[in-house]
Amino acid sequence: MKKIKALISIIMGSDSDLPIMQETAQILEKFAVGYELEIISAHRTPHKIAEFAATARARGIKVIVTGAGGAAHLAGVTAAFTTLPVIGVPIKAKTLEGFDSLCSIVQMPPGVPVATVGINGAKNAGLLALQILAVSDEELTKKLEKYKEQIADEVKNKNEKLAKIGYQKYLKDLQK
Amino acid sequence: MKKIKALISIIMGSDSDLPIMQETAQILEKFAVGYELEIISAHRTPHKIAEFAATARARGIKVIVTGAGGAAHLAGVTAAFTTLPVIGVPIKAKTLEGFDSLCSIVQMPPGVPVATVGINGAKNAGLLALQILAVSDEELTKKLEKYKEQIADEVKNKNEKLAKIGYQKYLKDLQK
Amino acid sequence: MKKIKALISIIMGSDSDLPIMQETAQILEKFAVGYELEIISAHRTPHKIAEFAATARARGIKVIVTGAGGAAHLAGVTAAFTTLPVIGVPIKAKTLEGFDSLCSIVQMPPGVPVATVGINGAKNAGLLALQILAVSDEELTKKLEKYKEQIADEVKNKNEKLAKIGYQKYLKDLQK
Amino acid sequence: MKKIKALISIIMGSDSDLPIMQETAQILEKFAVGYELEIISAHRTPHKIAEFAATARARGIKVIVTGAGGAAHLAGVTAAFTTLPVIGVPIKAKTLEGFDSLCSIVQMPPGVPVATVGINGAKNAGLLALQILAVSDEELTKKLEKYKEQIADEVKNKNEKLAKIGYQKYLKDLQK
Amino acid sequence: MKKIKALISIIMGSDSDLPIMQETAQILEKFAVGYELEIISAHRTPHKIAEFAATARARGIKVIVTGAGGAAHLAGVTAAFTTLPVIGVPIKAKTLEGFDSLCSIVQMPPGVPVATVGINGAKNAGLLALQILAVSDEELTKKLEKYKEQIADEVKNKNEKLAKIGYQKYLKDLQK
Amino acid sequence: MKKIKALISIIMGSDSDLPIMQETAQILEKFAVGYELEIISAHRTPHKIAEFAATARARGIKVIVTGAGGAAHLAGVTAAFTTLPVIGVPIKAKTLEGFDSLCSIVQMPPGVPVATVGINGAKNAGLLALQILAVSDEELTKKLEKYKEQIADEVKNKNEKLAKIGYQKYLKDLQK
Amino acid sequence: MKKIKALISIIMGSDSDLPIMQETAQILEKFAVGYELEIISAHRTPHKIAEFAATARARGIKVIVTGAGGAAHLAGVTAAFTTLPVIGVPIKAKTLEGFDSLCSIVQMPPGVPVATVGINGAKNAGLLALQILAVSDEELTKKLEKYKEQIADEVKNKNEKLAKIGYQKYLKDLQK
Amino acid sequence: MKKIKALISIIMGSDSDLPIMQETAQILEKFAVGYELEIISAHRTPHKIAEFAATARARGIKVIVTGAGGAAHLAGVTAAFTTLPVIGVPIKAKTLEGFDSLCSIVQMPPGVPVATVGINGAKNAGLLALQILAVSDEELTKKLEKYKEQIADEVKNKNEKLAKIGYQKYLKDLQK
Repeated sequence: MKKIKALISIIMGSDSDLPIMQETAQILEKFAVGYELEIISAHRTPHKIAEFAATARARGIKVIVTGAGGAAHLAGVTAAFTTLPVIGVPIKAKTLEGFDSLCSIVQMPPGVPVATVGINGAKNAGLLALQILAVSDEELTKKLEKYKEQIADEVKNKNEKLAKIGYQKYLKDLQK
Repeated sequence: MKKIKALISIIMGSDSDLPIMQETAQILEKFAVGYELEIISAHRTPHKIAEFAATARARGIKVIVTGAGGAAHLAGVTAAFTTLPVIGVPIKAKTLEGFDSLCSIVQMPPGVPVATVGINGAKNAGLLALQILAVSDEELTKKLEKYKEQIADEVKNKNEKLAKIGYQKYLKDLQK
Repeated sequence: MKKIKALISIIMGSDSDLPIMQETAQILEKFAVGYELEIISAHRTPHKIAEFAATARARGIKVIVTGAGGAAHLAGVTAAFTTLPVIGVPIKAKTLEGFDSLCSIVQMPPGVPVATVGINGAKNAGLLALQILAVSDEELTKKLEKYKEQIADEVKNKNEKLAKIGYQKYLKDLQK
Repeated sequence: MKKIKALISIIMGSDSDLPIMQETAQILEKFAVGYELEIISAHRTPHKIAEFAATARARGIKVIVTGAGGAAHLAGVTAAFTTLPVIGVPIKAKTLEGFDSLCSIVQMPPGVPVATVGINGAKNAGLLALQILAVSDEELTKKLEKYKEQIADEVKNKNEKLAKIGYQKYLKDLQK
Repeated sequence: MKKIKALISIIMGSDSDLPIMQETAQILEKFAVGYELEIISAHRTPHKIAEFAATARARGIKVIVTGAGGAAHLAGVTAAFTTLPVIGVPIKAKTLEGFDSLCSIVQMPPGVPVATVGINGAKNAGLLALQILAVSDEELTKKLEKYKEQIADEVKNKNEKLAKIGYQKYLKDLQK
Repeated sequence: MKKIKALISIIMGSDSDLPIMQETAQILEKFAVGYELEIISAHRTPHKIAEFAATARARGIKVIVTGAGGAAHLAGVTAAFTTLPVIGVPIKAKTLEGFDSLCSIVQMPPGVPVATVGINGAKNAGLLALQILAVSDEELTKKLEKYKEQIADEVKNKNEKLAKIGYQKYLKDLQK
Repeated sequence: MKKIKALISIIMGSDSDLPIMQETAQILEKFAVGYELEIISAHRTPHKIAEFAATARARGIKVIVTGAGGAAHLAGVTAAFTTLPVIGVPIKAKTLEGFDSLCSIVQMPPGVPVATVGINGAKNAGLLALQILAVSDEELTKKLEKYKEQIADEVKNKNEKLAKIGYQKYLKDLQK
Repeated sequence: MKKIKALISIIMGSDSDLPIMQETAQILEKFAVGYELEIISAHRTPHKIAEFAATARARGIKVIVTGAGGAAHLAGVTAAFTTLPVIGVPIKAKTLEGFDSLCSIVQMPPGVPVATVGINGAKNAGLLALQILAVSDEELTKKLEKYKEQIADEVKNKNEKLAKIGYQKYLKDLQK
């Protein structure tokens, strides 16, 4: 899957973030956009992050997606070493309902932005990365527009089903 | 200032957001990137937002920066109508310390991302927009790298001053 | 059930909200008040919401009940397009304990109110809709007063049982 | 001003809530809808609240608007004694940024809803009361639709000014 | 158990609070202090609460313990009708981690205090009620002092066990 | 003022709490109940607190009122050394809006209750102490009932004024 | 295991904290540093804590690690009685997501610091204690540096595995 | 002042943190312990932080004190590069009451602890650094014990004044 040239880099602070962060990979696969995927910890492998981030543009990477929980410094530290857009996914950890992760990622000081998505919002991080690529890629723009239509159609289909079978039966189907 | 072609659109929910949102305009001016600036309310001018967002790409806009406070729906609703990257600036309103604005902007459902920056982070919104443009613009990339060096140099200069005059005098100068 | 003319419209952002929002439908059924029920997403089907809300009054709808979670914009955006009373039900999503949903719905700017009920308070949303209808409907007022007596009686019955069997046995019965 | 028959009742827990709650009165005056205005404390005048609420419908009141801060019980206790729609305005007190007031009002148990508006949202409480009256009042509906157009026009006018004089001058005018 | 004269009144807003509130009853039983136990809802049985609270002192009640969740008005409304000490137990409901219940109970306005204990702290509510009775009851004071020694001894015994068997075995015993 | 025998002990963690805690003293003076007033820090004078609390009952003290902010341990530590009722007043410090103080005081473990009042609720702490004394003091009970009538009368008087002069004039008077 | 001389003291408020606090013991065992382990409650055994803390330095203890939940006073009260460094581990209890524990431990007044680690961060508390010992112990410093390399190597190994088997297989292995 | 050999390093993310962080310097000066003081931004000067932290031990530094606000990564990133104890001071920024800074600093992942003090707790950070030095420095231990007595004496003196002049006069003196 990863043989196509990587345009997006997906990094995460720990393999415990992978159950969430796989959603970024999946949406990129769906759009056939190449990516690289790595575990880099701002706290456990700090030397690596500088090199990784500083060389990302030269490697052809266009956007970096980061996922981390708790005192989630990965996004901000990555952004410190590159001028590429850095997207941060706050991962809900075992305490504080994800609020600590969110604050640690979004509240960056002036000069070094991180594009933060919702808590556990790894799929949206992938879509945002695609939207950024699409700024200068018409074909990808069309694909994104088609995707937008698809998710609208899904809602429409659900509505038709709901109208047809009623909410009681619909709920039973949901629980299956 | 706005005679150059607008690549970035800055919109805000109310003119009470302007004291913060002007910082987006200022950083774009510093980089000589054209922008448009408008007040569009997701709640007071809902019809306009659909047209505005849907036609943005055709107008040549590459990134939309939105600022709003409280139940801040502007970013999400804009993102609903376009596949352009939408950046959200949560504005701190009179209650809840900006937490309501942050949640309303960042916690988007799967399918429709908003790139959220920190509360009142309008300057960073501008920088993020520039980083997105720079993905396919080498000259802008160089400018951003230079800017990164400048903010590093500012820290360096402050440190030299601090070392030279000591913290007591430094603090007195700060208060002037 | 829905053959009687719909006076209340129940909409929700996703079918994942249905397990909660069915409670609005159920209480309306109990009072034999007609309703329509649809999935409309402020973010995935933005075009539909304008049309839906703008034509609601003409369709005979008197009150709109909306349910959504996270960055819950459905209530506010609906309210933007109609002068009908719009009731918002914040749905607790997987993070932040429902606080994000609550803030996104209740903290509306001046000019566009949303009548917000408690987190997951879909039953109360239905009762509030009925109270609004009852402002000009004496028969419905009587039914609501009777309902108020019934819920008071339920408390009374529980108390009698509690007095009779004691709290230990009562608790055992609760757990059955 | 209050000689016209009162359809709306505005009550508040303390005269310290009046600087906020006057906004409900003002918007009702703007629409020429009669109201009564009283200080009733759920905690200091508990006997009065039962009588007040229980007789409201008989007095011709259609909607009750309540404002209170801190452990704000006024809305819920009023709702306990009447089947009229009760609107709750959480008032920001000296601690906790209004979050305590909001929770105390909105998190009502099943059976007794309160239509909650934003913290300090007294103007919206008045508008919501008017929307409820308008459910069976076409003339008022038209007035509300006109009001909706007016607030849209205000945004439009601000935009025209902004386009004309630029944001720097606009900001200077704001600060005047 | 309840044949001895009731000195403490335990009331709760719903029978869903009973699994927590039984702990108040249990600690009173342990100290052989009589109590009455009832479900009284500030919202569903508002008429009853006035009568209940106003006659409590005449019935011989010395302290009232109340338990409720969400917009928990029971403690405050009870306190409004009596000068007896009222203890409030915030019950954690399904959202907001008990913070809404805590705020609704503790943040009372000047003039009408509620003695609030921790979230789900029904046992402590009972102990506090006993401490209040003990202010003028030497025998009960001695019992409370003995209880204090007992809970200190329990810690001591646990420590001896911990020292003897080590933490690994201790943990295994805990999980049994 | 303090020549009458002290029944209530008022302690606070720092003299910075005195602007709030004086309200406890004032309400006790109003009811002519003797008190002692001291600064005792759980963290700066830890040896003193054990002696103070352990001897309080012997000194004739009936209730201890404590005020502290931040990591407010004074109430809990006092309660650890005595079986007298301990009332805790969370003082709002410079950060976190008083929420830290509230949590540190109210969330006590089973076995050692603290009767917590609202943030900065020093007046209510005094009233609660009086209610506790009144459990076995009929004269004080009568005084408290009279006080309850007085605060109800104050509301009544304010209402009469409001009805007479209207809210605009009332507000002007408030601001004087 | 505890026969080597204890340099670190691990105390906790309740044996319910042991499942978390064992991680402090385990990391110290890994570094072969002696420790003592006890249950001491600031609220249930208050007399003991003064003696324990005051004699710790004389017993040869260098650092005290404390774990407690809710109104977690153990760390602060220990710090009040000693000038040894005191580390506080906030334990997540059944409500408020650990935020109450965190605030109760970290928000200490000027003069009496507590070195606070993350919620449930007992392992880090042990590592911090080791870092403090290592300030004057070169051998331990080397061990800590080796440990730092080990945790970096673990990340590296995980990455190699991830690169080799892909994220889908990696996730399956994680779930085993 | 800095001519004595630096044992403590004080770093902060921005000179806007200096009004708070000067308190660390002041307490070290009071104890005549040498320190270095610098502005190092985890985000604006990321290259410097690695070098700074990695060489700190070799420079003779024993403890590093860091101060930062918002998404405060300075402490964690410093801790990533050294095995010296790192103390974190969360600085309250313009939004969220310091909660974002606290979470970003304290919620570190296993393996890399930060010793966090209270929000704006720069004085305590200095005292904690001194306590860490004192683990192997008897003279400093004595000074810290003397300091502990002094702050206890200050409370004692305040109490004597309070007893002598009464709280009304005391308050007037405070306000001067």
